[in-house]
Amino acid sequence: MTEPLRVAIAGLGTVGAGVIRLLEANGSLITRRAGRSIEVVAVSARDRAKDRGIDISGLDWVDDPIELARHPRADVVVELVGGSDGPALALARAALGAGKSFVTANKAMIAHHGLELARAAEAHDAAMKFEAAVAGGVPVIKGLREGAAANEIARVYGILNGTCNYILSKMESEGSDFADVLAEAQALGYAEADPGFDIDGVDAAHKLSILASLAFGTSPSFGDVAIGGVRHVVAADIAEAAALGYRIRLIGIAEAGESGLFQRVHPYLIPMRHPLAHVQGSLNAVVAEGNYVGRLFFQGAGAGDGPTASAVVADLIDIARGEFGPPYAMPAESLAAQARADSGERRASAYIRLNVADRVGVLAEIATAMRDAGVSIESLIQRGAAADGSVLVVIVTHESPERCVEQALATLRGSASLMAEPMWMHILDE
Amino acid sequence: MTEPLRVAIAGLGTVGAGVIRLLEANGSLITRRAGRSIEVVAVSARDRAKDRGIDISGLDWVDDPIELARHPRADVVVELVGGSDGPALALARAALGAGKSFVTANKAMIAHHGLELARAAEAHDAAMKFEAAVAGGVPVIKGLREGAAANEIARVYGILNGTCNYILSKMESEGSDFADVLAEAQALGYAEADPGFDIDGVDAAHKLSILASLAFGTSPSFGDVAIGGVRHVVAADIAEAAALGYRIRLIGIAEAGESGLFQRVHPYLIPMRHPLAHVQGSLNAVVAEGNYVGRLFFQGAGAGDGPTASAVVADLIDIARGEFGPPYAMPAESLAAQARADSGERRASAYIRLNVADRVGVLAEIATAMRDAGVSIESLIQRGAAADGSVLVVIVTHESPERCVEQALATLRGSASLMAEPMWMHILDE
Repeated sequence: MTEPLRVAIAGLGTVGAGVIRLLEANGSLITRRAGRSIEVVAVSARDRAKDRGIDISGLDWVDDPIELARHPRADVVVELVGGSDGPALALARAALGAGKSFVTANKAMIAHHGLELARAAEAHDAAMKFEAAVAGGVPVIKGLREGAAANEIARVYGILNGTCNYILSKMESEGSDFADVLAEAQALGYAEADPGFDIDGVDAAHKLSILASLAFGTSPSFGDVAIGGVRHVVAADIAEAAALGYRIRLIGIAEAGESGLFQRVHPYLIPMRHPLAHVQGSLNAVVAEGNYVGRLFFQGAGAGDGPTASAVVADLIDIARGEFGPPYAMPAESLAAQARADSGERRASAYIRLNVADRVGVLAEIATAMRDAGVSIESLIQRGAAADGSVLVVIVTHESPERCVEQALATLRGSASLMAEPMWMHILDE
Repeated sequence: MTEPLRVAIAGLGTVGAGVIRLLEANGSLITRRAGRSIEVVAVSARDRAKDRGIDISGLDWVDDPIELARHPRADVVVELVGGSDGPALALARAALGAGKSFVTANKAMIAHHGLELARAAEAHDAAMKFEAAVAGGVPVIKGLREGAAANEIARVYGILNGTCNYILSKMESEGSDFADVLAEAQALGYAEADPGFDIDGVDAAHKLSILASLAFGTSPSFGDVAIGGVRHVVAADIAEAAALGYRIRLIGIAEAGESGLFQRVHPYLIPMRHPLAHVQGSLNAVVAEGNYVGRLFFQGAGAGDGPTASAVVADLIDIARGEFGPPYAMPAESLAAQARADSGERRASAYIRLNVADRVGVLAEIATAMRDAGVSIESLIQRGAAADGSVLVVIVTHESPERCVEQALATLRGSASLMAEPMWMHILDE
């Protein structure tokens, strides 16, 4: 095993350059740990002349990334181009089709095409690894695939999008409103100019569907994730949640049950005693609940060139060691398709925020709607009228089926007293 | 790879029985994940007739555990006997000497003899795995060995003893004193009748020395761990720390620096913003700080039959998959010995609690001792006299070399005003 592991990298953005920088900085340590050296032999990117702060003069330059799949000296192709389809997918297919091992940080592509790519990898006994696709530098894929492998996992959930967590943490510490914090995050480069993928929950849903597959041994089904984001969380929600002993976090949660596979991304109220309540800023965190190990909790940087490069190189080290198996821990053909679970029957406490007109009978209307839908109220707080004349009513329900909460809200949406769309969030059990 | 992995187990206490129960309960899932079944073929324990709630009638029974090393059908020997030497070590040597793979949960044995055993395993290309030896079910060995493998680790530290954390958490939530909570924990079976190994920090030190080896690529050196426990923490310390924005936790910390390897187990004040401050009850948690990944945090159950069995079986799954390398991530011969670092030069803030006589001039005496040693005081709180006439003085220092704090305390120990041994703890940086 003294031959180096030879790597071709497509995409030299911050992560691609970070991988090259890491391999250089920690090279001798990595060689000791991997049992052989890991050597970049070829790269491909859009602009050859761009200054990336790394020396690529000694590497083969390839204009068309797809060509890397046929590079005669490369054992592994690393894809850091991004995008669920297009060149990233074409490269993945070509590399795996040519029997090369393949490493990617591309959650969108794995969420949509992971199963197809895993089959291609298995056909050639090649590796297909994607640790960096979920929670950046945090080894949660390895944690599920190997660390918790002895367990039947009841549910896997966590904070999978750093941008949303940064925004929610800032709203919390500064009492600011969503739009202000988002604008600030964009100015600082923490949020994209087009932040939809992050703040509307799509990015977290990509990652969740990957985790669910690994946790439950089911085929990936991104299309079955119910997706909500954080746009509708206001400063008052954060304050009311805090007064009740909760913090608000965007959670991706997956649960395998008798009625099928449940997958959802949505803001949740997290009790202060739960470890996810203490995940601050742009950190990511994942919880896996196993039938023997109990609750495992992993936390760390979910994005950034250093952490992402750390995960990409960890995959390369596994490949250099020859320690990899099927991408989803078991053969792709043995991953069972699961029906989408009916979320209506799920029972949990809910937080409901209503902005209503300040007039006689409104509370009775709300209470009646809840009663008629069979939702029992644990607590209700009414705050004095705001500048626009609206009154804030915050309700915490006893555990009830989600369908009943939806029904109560449907009734209230028809009411002339409602001055804004009601907001409701699930409350995570401790 | 359709041949099962055949396992012999020495020791059928709660963990041994837990492993057999887990393999039975999650058997088909484990077979899917491991690519082949894992089958217990032989067992050894003290009392054959004892009711353990498991059926061992179909397994070979061996009276002398050492015999398992020569069992003709066993591929792997699992040692759950315990003890750093004696039968556990004899079995480990015999099994590895016979070229069998070896799995253990025995931190004391690994801390003392890990290097010798790793060499024996490597000589036969056999596995020697001990995930369960540190932090129970939490995959921290895997996290360091593989997940963070691309990183130079600056320091690794964490809460490595559940009994101490349970006691400190209880003292915190109930305001009780150490001795009362210990007695309660013993009555409930959470603490041993002879609790010294736990509360004096020896158990945490075993685990710390294993983590340090993996994190830094250095040879294990348990003898170089500076060990302190939690016996001297009183309710007042917990209360004063809380008022200052800290929680007290028993921390094992290792750091590789220019002056050598620093390893210490000691109670620390943890800032509330640090994730370790939120580790409650008997949970364990480990932090690893890498030069690319940043701060990784792992948390979960550090003991108990379920979590420990989960880690033992995760090791067996790795072996069944053929995914294991040298026990310490790199060949034992390449682990470098490191000198013990001089802790006196370490700079940190310190918490000092003094119980002094209620008389004129005491504060001046304290302040002078601190000044003469070159320790600058950040805050000082004096509380009114207690029933015994003593006055509590709590000092938080600015960052200073530990040697200076020790020197100030040495001066004060000679003072007639001191009514009890001073208590001092390090403050973890955020």
